[in-house]
Amino acid sequence: MAGVLDRIKQPNDIKNVSPSQYPRLAKEIRHFLLHKVSATGGHLASNLGAVELTMALHLFLDLPKDKLIWDVGHQAYVHKLLTGRQDGFEHLREYQGMSGFPKRKESNCDAFDTGHSSTSLSVANGMVSARELSGTNEKIVAVIGDGALGGGMAFEALNNLGKIKSNLIIVLNDNTMSISENVGGMANYLAKIRTNTAYTGFKGSLEETLSKTPVGEKLVKKLKQSKDSLKHLMIGGMYFEDMGITYIGPIDGHDIAQMTRALESAARMQKAVLIHVVTKKGKGYDHAEADPGKFHGVEPFALKTGEILKKTEGITYTKAFSKAMVELGEKNDKLVAITAAMPSGTGLSAFAKKYPERFFDVGIAEEHAVTFAAGMAASGYHPVVAIYSTFLQRAYDQILHDVCIGNLPVTFAVDRAGIVGKDGETHQGIFDLSFLSHIPNLTVMAPKNTKELKEMLAFATECDFPVAIRYPRGTAGAAEEMEVEIIRYQKAEVLSEGHDVAIISVGSTADEAFSLRERLSEQGIYAGVTNARFVAPMDEEMILSLARSHKVLVTLEENVARGGFGERVAALLKENAIETPLVTGTLNNCFIEHGEASLLKQEYGLNEEKLLEKILERYGH
Amino acid sequence: MAGVLDRIKQPNDIKNVSPSQYPRLAKEIRHFLLHKVSATGGHLASNLGAVELTMALHLFLDLPKDKLIWDVGHQAYVHKLLTGRQDGFEHLREYQGMSGFPKRKESNCDAFDTGHSSTSLSVANGMVSARELSGTNEKIVAVIGDGALGGGMAFEALNNLGKIKSNLIIVLNDNTMSISENVGGMANYLAKIRTNTAYTGFKGSLEETLSKTPVGEKLVKKLKQSKDSLKHLMIGGMYFEDMGITYIGPIDGHDIAQMTRALESAARMQKAVLIHVVTKKGKGYDHAEADPGKFHGVEPFALKTGEILKKTEGITYTKAFSKAMVELGEKNDKLVAITAAMPSGTGLSAFAKKYPERFFDVGIAEEHAVTFAAGMAASGYHPVVAIYSTFLQRAYDQILHDVCIGNLPVTFAVDRAGIVGKDGETHQGIFDLSFLSHIPNLTVMAPKNTKELKEMLAFATECDFPVAIRYPRGTAGAAEEMEVEIIRYQKAEVLSEGHDVAIISVGSTADEAFSLRERLSEQGIYAGVTNARFVAPMDEEMILSLARSHKVLVTLEENVARGGFGERVAALLKENAIETPLVTGTLNNCFIEHGEASLLKQEYGLNEEKLLEKILERYGH
Repeated sequence: MAGVLDRIKQPNDIKNVSPSQYPRLAKEIRHFLLHKVSATGGHLASNLGAVELTMALHLFLDLPKDKLIWDVGHQAYVHKLLTGRQDGFEHLREYQGMSGFPKRKESNCDAFDTGHSSTSLSVANGMVSARELSGTNEKIVAVIGDGALGGGMAFEALNNLGKIKSNLIIVLNDNTMSISENVGGMANYLAKIRTNTAYTGFKGSLEETLSKTPVGEKLVKKLKQSKDSLKHLMIGGMYFEDMGITYIGPIDGHDIAQMTRALESAARMQKAVLIHVVTKKGKGYDHAEADPGKFHGVEPFALKTGEILKKTEGITYTKAFSKAMVELGEKNDKLVAITAAMPSGTGLSAFAKKYPERFFDVGIAEEHAVTFAAGMAASGYHPVVAIYSTFLQRAYDQILHDVCIGNLPVTFAVDRAGIVGKDGETHQGIFDLSFLSHIPNLTVMAPKNTKELKEMLAFATECDFPVAIRYPRGTAGAAEEMEVEIIRYQKAEVLSEGHDVAIISVGSTADEAFSLRERLSEQGIYAGVTNARFVAPMDEEMILSLARSHKVLVTLEENVARGGFGERVAALLKENAIETPLVTGTLNNCFIEHGEASLLKQEYGLNEEKLLEKILERYGH
Repeated sequence: MAGVLDRIKQPNDIKNVSPSQYPRLAKEIRHFLLHKVSATGGHLASNLGAVELTMALHLFLDLPKDKLIWDVGHQAYVHKLLTGRQDGFEHLREYQGMSGFPKRKESNCDAFDTGHSSTSLSVANGMVSARELSGTNEKIVAVIGDGALGGGMAFEALNNLGKIKSNLIIVLNDNTMSISENVGGMANYLAKIRTNTAYTGFKGSLEETLSKTPVGEKLVKKLKQSKDSLKHLMIGGMYFEDMGITYIGPIDGHDIAQMTRALESAARMQKAVLIHVVTKKGKGYDHAEADPGKFHGVEPFALKTGEILKKTEGITYTKAFSKAMVELGEKNDKLVAITAAMPSGTGLSAFAKKYPERFFDVGIAEEHAVTFAAGMAASGYHPVVAIYSTFLQRAYDQILHDVCIGNLPVTFAVDRAGIVGKDGETHQGIFDLSFLSHIPNLTVMAPKNTKELKEMLAFATECDFPVAIRYPRGTAGAAEEMEVEIIRYQKAEVLSEGHDVAIISVGSTADEAFSLRERLSEQGIYAGVTNARFVAPMDEEMILSLARSHKVLVTLEENVARGGFGERVAALLKENAIETPLVTGTLNNCFIEHGEASLLKQEYGLNEEKLLEKILERYGH
């Protein structure tokens, strides 16, 4: 018997499925996702939780005419399935395969590209304003999670959405957590609504009671004089109502009929309407329901046991950071740690467990995380703010304005710097050297392996000024075995002497440097390798000395060319009228799609053959 | 008779003033501010509005032990007066004179440096968390305006402040406007609280009515079952209560006794308490009360008439932009304009007046502004987002992630790029070339005069990809008279031929380039001047050709060195093995204090004598 899912070949095909078969379709979708994602890896728990919600949305909308905007975007797998992209799951998140996020270039049913959090309401507001100008009538729906709602930008949008004059439906997909446990006032507030069943029951009976008695009539009059209070009495979700947004809910996010009714009644209002939908993350897969954090973004795993198949060999930078933080916390009671909803991803969970009072998870709020750190630093503490490179982009102004103008002692642990791989262009950490290195007062460092990360962290947390340490996803590879000299401020570290070519590697590129060295030696060219360590301020003395004593200078960094280390070395050489040829190995100045990190490096600028060719050419070989 | 203000020489001196003299002190402070600021220029209206509020805070607090954090900071003049900085007003905002913003290095009563909006609650949260760890007992108060409360970061902080376990007082200084009219759901909500006098009256009488009747008793029971609803009935400011923050207000911000009582009762709660204080911007000076926007930040003015004394001669970039937008709006009905609370400052007021339906003021919400623009662009419109360079820092991630990954047609009008002068380090627009030029897909341009700005704007709004145009505060100077060639993509413009030295100027530095040319010609050296026009992607062909045909290449830009145009030119020359000496004229890599713009340029890197010296040295003269 052919499956129901097999009949879905293109957008809107779900409308030909009879309602009695919805549960079966939902089951098939979950089955499909589990089988595919357990093989390829990817985002699972959030997608399992959004099956019925996505079905209801696709029944309600006419795609691609209508616009469906997913916040963050990793929960759009079911949407991809229902728009006929089943085959894409064969090569999910592989190089040139299907993306794990919505992509306008992948489908005209993907209304907007995303990857970072809390952007959907602003995008939707823009689309609504455009529709109001053009006079068209497409529906616009934004789906945002409860975690993403804590991001400041989502609030900025809510604050503006009270002004729109036509319909917008905001689906708040409340699964009581973002990636880790959701925190803060908004989370508590939503929890209160969810659990306070009195809300719905109360509404009818008070109205009845009031209108049936004379004193009641008087009360009704009184209440009506104070319209706001009446609204408070009658409606849940006053928080949103206060912003001028109609609230409907809470609604069972696994009940398609209930959601369909809510969507239809919401669509009749010429304003922004928020439907509060409660879903269960990981729904339908016991292992994911029990540990949704583990199955948020997963590597391939055994379906039966839920066990991750391929364990990373060797110690990752994240693990080393995690361990180092626990040790430093022991020695330094002024050390505090801050994460923006990523205690596990950044490795801070261990610190949190050992020093709960010195650990702060501020939710998906990178801006607040950084300025909160500035406040603590101004009060004598030394915060370590651990945020992935790509998400730290959100806090550029806070780093500059709140931390660096005051020259405050905050350490930024910039994990996932460089190519991250399968999450693709919205997640690559390839800009941090460019957006951090020009900020005055900020020292920027990069370790070649996890031992050096540990040393740098100890060094940075002793500084009375701001320091950023950027390090990549995964392990250091062969460079992990290298020794680590003591860190001295603004001093590079010579890893290997040479006399023909001097290679200066930034952090994670030490491995590539040694590989190049090997290749050059095959040609009878002896290359030295120096570990830059400090990207800002860089070791100018060492760089000039290397340039003066070698025939070719090579820089390597896992960052785009513009604003990176190589450009600054070029400027330094020019300034000092040094004519030694320079080859700058960087990533190309473009967004870099998803795929295996090693492959992407080769494709996007850090290609060994091409670098070798350039070096030999400049060497005059 | 000596004034009361004269007796205030240091922090806490106000506590020796008898309450009966408070009105007199307030009057003297206003008199002082009016006389000083009318002579020096500065921020006026917000300070006139905050006189009694600041007095109440100083009576309540023990500075510098307690921490008083000002959001934005331009309203801290009265605070400076009450901490004994009267003399500083002689040289307010002058080079090496007193700053117009709180500065930790200026006084230990300034708890935190600021200048950008919406940061105070995050800072305060950090300080509260630090206090909870160290077990000290200083009071912590943050003062935030109603406009700044619309910034996303303030929400992120509110969302976290429900968790604190000790006292924090948030003073919401609600003057019903930020710089221009405040917009959005939060503003409407606050207005509702302010005007709904029923709130306070209602509270008592409903309780009475309810308890006096049998049906009432039943109702009370029912109401109590639904605790939240009851709270909604009884308390104003539920929006804040929902976030876990106690609300007190609204309170008259010109009544010191009322504020003192509120502060004292707030201080007794071991949690975050928001006191909603209503003030009148410009209070006590008729001209400012009537037009607070004009007297927000002012140049010197005639006290009697309120007239600005020194009118800017010539057309400013802002005015030219303003006019060009109106003209382009006529021709292109897909053109829309977006501002973040700066309709007047950015020059968009004229567009707003003529095309109200195509104009969007999103409030102090730069992040939302940019992603809102992305949404409109994805729906077929071409938004022009006008945000000052320094404030655009807030939206770095949105430009990169929401506009540039999708390569959407958004034009960024980056006003106040370069040295802005008297507002100082928090406001200098000296980083935009660095934080914009490395973003893939983004074209970055800079005009040499207002005619070219107009041409660039026309050009950019015809592009189907994102473009940023950066231009400075004020006028173009002598360069204003120069002709403007037709704009061609990625093409520089030769302004003047030369054969010895080639000067490439970025935007506003054309004037400096010609001045250098003049000086060089005095030495018998003939310099050509080329207007870069495109900073990203730059006109590599032209740059290489100039480098090959001249003895020295010079770049000039009003941006820090790192990540700027000069560095990229250096890298280009190195890549092409061109040995022509390069002199990069940039601002130094540091934060730049307040003062006259022309003076600051000389002091911080764009010094004509020093540049000349360098050029001559490299020229071998």
